Amino acid sequence: MQMPSEINHNSLTGGWDALWLDCHLATMAGPKPYGIIADGALAVKDGRIAWIGPAAELPAGAEKRTGVVHRLNNAWVTPGFIDCHTHLVYAGNRAHEFELRLNGATYEEIARAGGGIVSTVKAVRAASEEELVAQSTPRLRALQSEGVTTVEIKSGYGLETASELKMLRVARRLGQDHPVTVHATFLGAHAQPPEFQGRSDAYIDLVIEEMLPAVAAANLANAVDVFCENIAFSVAQTERVFKAAVDCGLPVKLHAEQLSDQKGAILATRYDALSVDHVEYIQPDGVAALADRGTVAVLLPGAFYFIHETQKPPVKGFRQAGVPMALATDCNPGTSPCTSPLLMMNMACVNFGLTPAEALAGFTTNAAHALGIAADFGTLEAGKQADLAVWDIQTPAELAYRLGGNPCSKVIKTGEIVVNR
Amino acid sequence: MQMPSEINHNSLTGGWDALWLDCHLATMAGPKPYGIIADGALAVKDGRIAWIGPAAELPAGAEKRTGVVHRLNNAWVTPGFIDCHTHLVYAGNRAHEFELRLNGATYEEIARAGGGIVSTVKAVRAASEEELVAQSTPRLRALQSEGVTTVEIKSGYGLETASELKMLRVARRLGQDHPVTVHATFLGAHAQPPEFQGRSDAYIDLVIEEMLPAVAAANLANAVDVFCENIAFSVAQTERVFKAAVDCGLPVKLHAEQLSDQKGAILATRYDALSVDHVEYIQPDGVAALADRGTVAVLLPGAFYFIHETQKPPVKGFRQAGVPMALATDCNPGTSPCTSPLLMMNMACVNFGLTPAEALAGFTTNAAHALGIAADFGTLEAGKQADLAVWDIQTPAELAYRLGGNPCSKVIKTGEIVVNR
Ligand SMILES: [Zn+2]
Ligand SMILES: [Zn+2]
Repeated sequence: MQMPSEINHNSLTGGWDALWLDCHLATMAGPKPYGIIADGALAVKDGRIAWIGPAAELPAGAEKRTGVVHRLNNAWVTPGFIDCHTHLVYAGNRAHEFELRLNGATYEEIARAGGGIVSTVKAVRAASEEELVAQSTPRLRALQSEGVTTVEIKSGYGLETASELKMLRVARRLGQDHPVTVHATFLGAHAQPPEFQGRSDAYIDLVIEEMLPAVAAANLANAVDVFCENIAFSVAQTERVFKAAVDCGLPVKLHAEQLSDQKGAILATRYDALSVDHVEYIQPDGVAALADRGTVAVLLPGAFYFIHETQKPPVKGFRQAGVPMALATDCNPGTSPCTSPLLMMNMACVNFGLTPAEALAGFTTNAAHALGIAADFGTLEAGKQADLAVWDIQTPAELAYRLGGNPCSKVIKTGEIVVNR
Repeated sequence: MQMPSEINHNSLTGGWDALWLDCHLATMAGPKPYGIIADGALAVKDGRIAWIGPAAELPAGAEKRTGVVHRLNNAWVTPGFIDCHTHLVYAGNRAHEFELRLNGATYEEIARAGGGIVSTVKAVRAASEEELVAQSTPRLRALQSEGVTTVEIKSGYGLETASELKMLRVARRLGQDHPVTVHATFLGAHAQPPEFQGRSDAYIDLVIEEMLPAVAAANLANAVDVFCENIAFSVAQTERVFKAAVDCGLPVKLHAEQLSDQKGAILATRYDALSVDHVEYIQPDGVAALADRGTVAVLLPGAFYFIHETQKPPVKGFRQAGVPMALATDCNPGTSPCTSPLLMMNMACVNFGLTPAEALAGFTTNAAHALGIAADFGTLEAGKQADLAVWDIQTPAELAYRLGGNPCSKVIKTGEIVVNR
């Protein structure tokens, strides 16, 4: 595959594989919202964007020297969506618990009925790799149908070495079996497993001494994550995991300040974290630390909504400080059973006050930064991978404006059409 | 078509047209939540449900004497969904206004930029019938893809006789061109048109003296609706419209107590309204009036969410008083650009505290009552029309639990498969 620097953007050397015409481009590149190219054209060669610009400026003879010319009837093209925070590999679901709670059951009654994260841990441990693949595939397909071409998937429901490895193998397999780039994240420090209740330091020992080396040896993760919270792991425990991750050569990220300000985000910036996620309770010192290091804040409007959170992330603070904001579905059975990036964009606008352009950046360019893959993904620019989503809309603001419905007509992965609706 | 009373439910006289097997049925009939028949069977004859019950109780020789036998691989079957409150016929959209507001524009600036309901009125007046059909069809299709087999569609963006008639003709045409039952509602008293600013009584004169007789003469509406609110029409004006509707032989319904308690709901019960809709601000006297007359309260979680309403409808009060609660998308460009019944079910649970079973009743049996069509629609019972939705789920609670995604695999209208995903 050609690297960006090797491409002669304006030449037709050897011809192009495909050319997309009769469309408007929201490139998400450059300083202006959306980076719009009206009446644009986009050429693909060897799976990458070979040329992009106004159709009127196409080199002479372009169509003739292109393998396939696609006409899009004035549709809009955006970068393929990147869902940078999901837990989409799991078994079972928590609809029963959802129903019990709405029928007035207390948390104790739900726990007694086998509810809570423990129920998902049990189901994941009991499931075979095949079963996990089968149950997770429809969720991945739902994301793809809304334009997703790259997805991050975390472990964290195994909470024992074999099951954590199993989850990460399933994540890798989903990436092999489907036209989607999968970034796998090891989240052994997601919750205390039942057998370690009251011994959380001992569990962190296991994460560091057994799980992480096994994950790294098998090359099963692209990053390491921790849930830093008063109901999960402390800042000190988080730092132990981060140090071990650095020793393994893996970048870190953090579930931070979701329910309280633990100052986890500040710690994360000291370890050059790719992102800090949730951050409803982050304070100005945390915002300043993110701004200082260019760390991405990943906002998760699905969990905010589903658990009735009222504290909103400091969007104005992020904006003023220049902290890049990404969005994600947080797809998980307990707090965000969500497979709709478009709905997350709407909720980010309605509930957090993002602009539609910021919401789209949240699933494209800023999400690429949150995964450390911005050199190749996240914008429509010559040299980047040709991951595109095509939308039957009049203006890009419609993507965030609608509540339900899916105007995605095509998804293109590495230059190939992989969804056609 | 056979009427319910003519059917011999347990006989196979003449054979059945179709039989659905290997499924679980959420009949929504009877006193228990969901009215579940596990391992059920459902037979169709002449577009109606001819037999329904446990598969083990099927009459001998049933399969042999049936035209087509469908096997559903353990899917769940519910009544076809009924979206009992929509404004889905309109032109243009308000994504631009949504974006302006999120970029900090004031209401004044938005009004100056042509925003607000006036922009939709202008677009609808300018649009041809063909254009309205073309723009509304994708919204109808989106509803159908989530199981909708009956939809109510209101006028109310014409606000002049010719344009109101045009909207209602479009609603009728959508019902003719698609396998969906359309109930058209005349909502001339939706807002004051620009040319009547400050002369709302004169506009009500026009509604009563010109529009309503024309609508009734052309048989273009199944009901008459009014927006009773401090920003719309008063209780006295509402009553004038109701009286005129009664004179035309049309049932009434009401947009009531959405932003304040106008006591519109109490007025509506005195005119035997089919439903009162929104009702966030209804007080105990209103709840009692609804309970007394069996009037349906239609809850609209999309608008509640989209306009940042904080006052919730009194769900516990409705429940205790026995007021039937329906749900609807309220599909409209200004306050609920929504085409997802499933999302409305989720929001009704998360934001209003409905149980998943109540949410499903809201789009089936109670929605049928809200349209006055419960004799033929809304539950799976022998004799009713064979309008069904088939879902790839393990339990019916999943329908309300998910955020995004669409597990609807088939929609059956009058016995025929009309959506197959
Ligand atoms: Zn998470
Ligand atoms: Zn309405």
